[in-house]
Amino acid sequence: MNKKFDNIKKLYVSKPLKLDCGKTISNFPLAYETYGKLNSDKDNAILVFHALTGDQFVTGTNPITNKEGWWVTAVGPNKALDTDKYFVICANVIGGCMGSFGPRDINPVTNHPYGLDFPVITIRDMVRAQESLLDHLGIKKLLCATGGSMGGMQLLQFCTTFPNKTFSAVPIACSTSHSAQNIALNELARQAIMADPVWDNGKYFEKNIQPKNGLAVARMVGHISYLSEKGMQEKFGRKLQEKADYEFSFNADFQVESYLRHQGYAFVERFDANSILYITRAMDYFDISKQFDGGLIDAFKNQKTKFLVISFSSDWLYTTKENKDIVIALNASGADVSFSEIKTEKGHDSFLVNEPDFLKTLKSFIDSMYEKIKK
Amino acid sequence: MNKKFDNIKKLYVSKPLKLDCGKTISNFPLAYETYGKLNSDKDNAILVFHALTGDQFVTGTNPITNKEGWWVTAVGPNKALDTDKYFVICANVIGGCMGSFGPRDINPVTNHPYGLDFPVITIRDMVRAQESLLDHLGIKKLLCATGGSMGGMQLLQFCTTFPNKTFSAVPIACSTSHSAQNIALNELARQAIMADPVWDNGKYFEKNIQPKNGLAVARMVGHISYLSEKGMQEKFGRKLQEKADYEFSFNADFQVESYLRHQGYAFVERFDANSILYITRAMDYFDISKQFDGGLIDAFKNQKTKFLVISFSSDWLYTTKENKDIVIALNASGADVSFSEIKTEKGHDSFLVNEPDFLKTLKSFIDSMYEKIKK
Repeated sequence: MNKKFDNIKKLYVSKPLKLDCGKTISNFPLAYETYGKLNSDKDNAILVFHALTGDQFVTGTNPITNKEGWWVTAVGPNKALDTDKYFVICANVIGGCMGSFGPRDINPVTNHPYGLDFPVITIRDMVRAQESLLDHLGIKKLLCATGGSMGGMQLLQFCTTFPNKTFSAVPIACSTSHSAQNIALNELARQAIMADPVWDNGKYFEKNIQPKNGLAVARMVGHISYLSEKGMQEKFGRKLQEKADYEFSFNADFQVESYLRHQGYAFVERFDANSILYITRAMDYFDISKQFDGGLIDAFKNQKTKFLVISFSSDWLYTTKENKDIVIALNASGADVSFSEIKTEKGHDSFLVNEPDFLKTLKSFIDSMYEKIKK
Repeated sequence: MNKKFDNIKKLYVSKPLKLDCGKTISNFPLAYETYGKLNSDKDNAILVFHALTGDQFVTGTNPITNKEGWWVTAVGPNKALDTDKYFVICANVIGGCMGSFGPRDINPVTNHPYGLDFPVITIRDMVRAQESLLDHLGIKKLLCATGGSMGGMQLLQFCTTFPNKTFSAVPIACSTSHSAQNIALNELARQAIMADPVWDNGKYFEKNIQPKNGLAVARMVGHISYLSEKGMQEKFGRKLQEKADYEFSFNADFQVESYLRHQGYAFVERFDANSILYITRAMDYFDISKQFDGGLIDAFKNQKTKFLVISFSSDWLYTTKENKDIVIALNASGADVSFSEIKTEKGHDSFLVNEPDFLKTLKSFIDSMYEKIKK
């Protein structure tokens, strides 16, 4: 394991965790970060679940990448997740590469990094690991839990696996199971990584290199799917990249090409290729109704948690229809649920950027939940 | 050049063609195929322009791949392009790999395949090359010209570069310029190919190998974009590939994964990686309004050609909106144009599959045009 991860917060989860694949792990690291202060009633905690390429550093400066936290738009003093009022917690998912147990860790059996010997994990495994963190922090019940994309999927899993562990929940731009198109896009990313000979069946890490070409292509898939067609047209259109006319070459003539290349190769600096394989696999396996004989209605039964489901009108990865299906299932289960579709051209990325309607909706919901608890 | 291309029909275009990039080519091969018979009035000819991965073999058996022609649903006796009545012509685009002048040809200067020394071509270059074929066949005016996707783009270019060379025209699922999202998807395909070390700056062909991993990933990008989200869900959903449950591995657990892998690697057998680079580049450079000072209205002025524009409701690559923009421009130019949006969940691929409403619309338009001519 890289030394740069030595100084970040980590819980070593001692309780054995039986994974969905059948294997059991124990004494594994779960890296996490907290923001704000837990009050004496311990009722102001908000758990944030991160998305595919996110991590525990939601706001401020990420000490590993020296970049801004991925949810700086939503988390901080006076923001939607107001760190002057609330205690915000986020853990790196297992399978990830920001300090939690992942394929880059050393396998004590071989003394080499796990690579593909790391067990295939699920969203439920991720969530079960994170429950230990709440025990560790002495939190019996959260004020709220939230997350977008895969973060929303973890949240739905959390609510069904540990009912009533949170007073309220805001799943954002997600679904209760991965669609064929989303599985296909993830498979495309995996195939791009696996096509890179440097990947070498996941053993690249032993040689201290990365399959950077494959990983960059995988990341480009993501960036295309996170924007909407109209949003891309408005942002880039057919604008050329610092040139007056076509170059008649395969250089990046268009700004959108330059953007993709930059995003793809920048990503290689901060992420691990095997983690992309493991985390996308967990997303594809995600299907809550499969876990319950009675399907979704059974999954959400007896929920006392108050839900707000949020979707974005131009999100084609997790469409409003898919988000509404969550609402329908929660309603059918008799849960307390409200729904908001934010009109925006910013696509799936809307939850990460400065989208005022969204941030206002999120803030007023969380604040109203806190008032309810304090009444 | 591979010997298997020796027995296919080819015109060697002797007239020098000045390409948009500034270079001039001459005595280059243009491979083509015809179906049906040209009548004595020479007024029953239909020119078909093929899409990115198409070729001149629209129907019957492709003698190179031994597979069915790509438009067998639309071309043949009694079909929309009725080969009992009409003389159907299709040429392989320059830059392609089915016998027309392309990057796989031998560069007489170096005695090696051109590879990246092949000139960067445009849609207009493709169309200008094909005009020579009409001269060669003695056709002054076509009854109809048609094509879907890049075929439709060639058709729009043909109509503006050679006004009134066709009595009627049916552009299908296309646009007058490539959107940012479409450029991005093409760039993703190119980056996948270029990321493959076997590609070796386009010089792989000298070693008689193909960058098959990169090319397969590029093809998977295409297959995802050709289907609609709902169409994929209906076709594949979360169905598993010949197994009862998840395997907890990176094998193709889901049918959609298996489909993509199969399509990707099958494609490698029939297509050339450099051709994908050149043809996608031509698509990205396509922007009719850029060629005319007065924009699209100027591009289409004085058109006597009768147009039918067809779009598919679930096509997210060339949306109904983009197709309607063609109609708006044609209308504004005073052209004779009608429009049909076919309601279907089959996405961009709709023009290639058995979509009865589409095929009926196409057939009745072409037949009515022939009646008009014969009056």
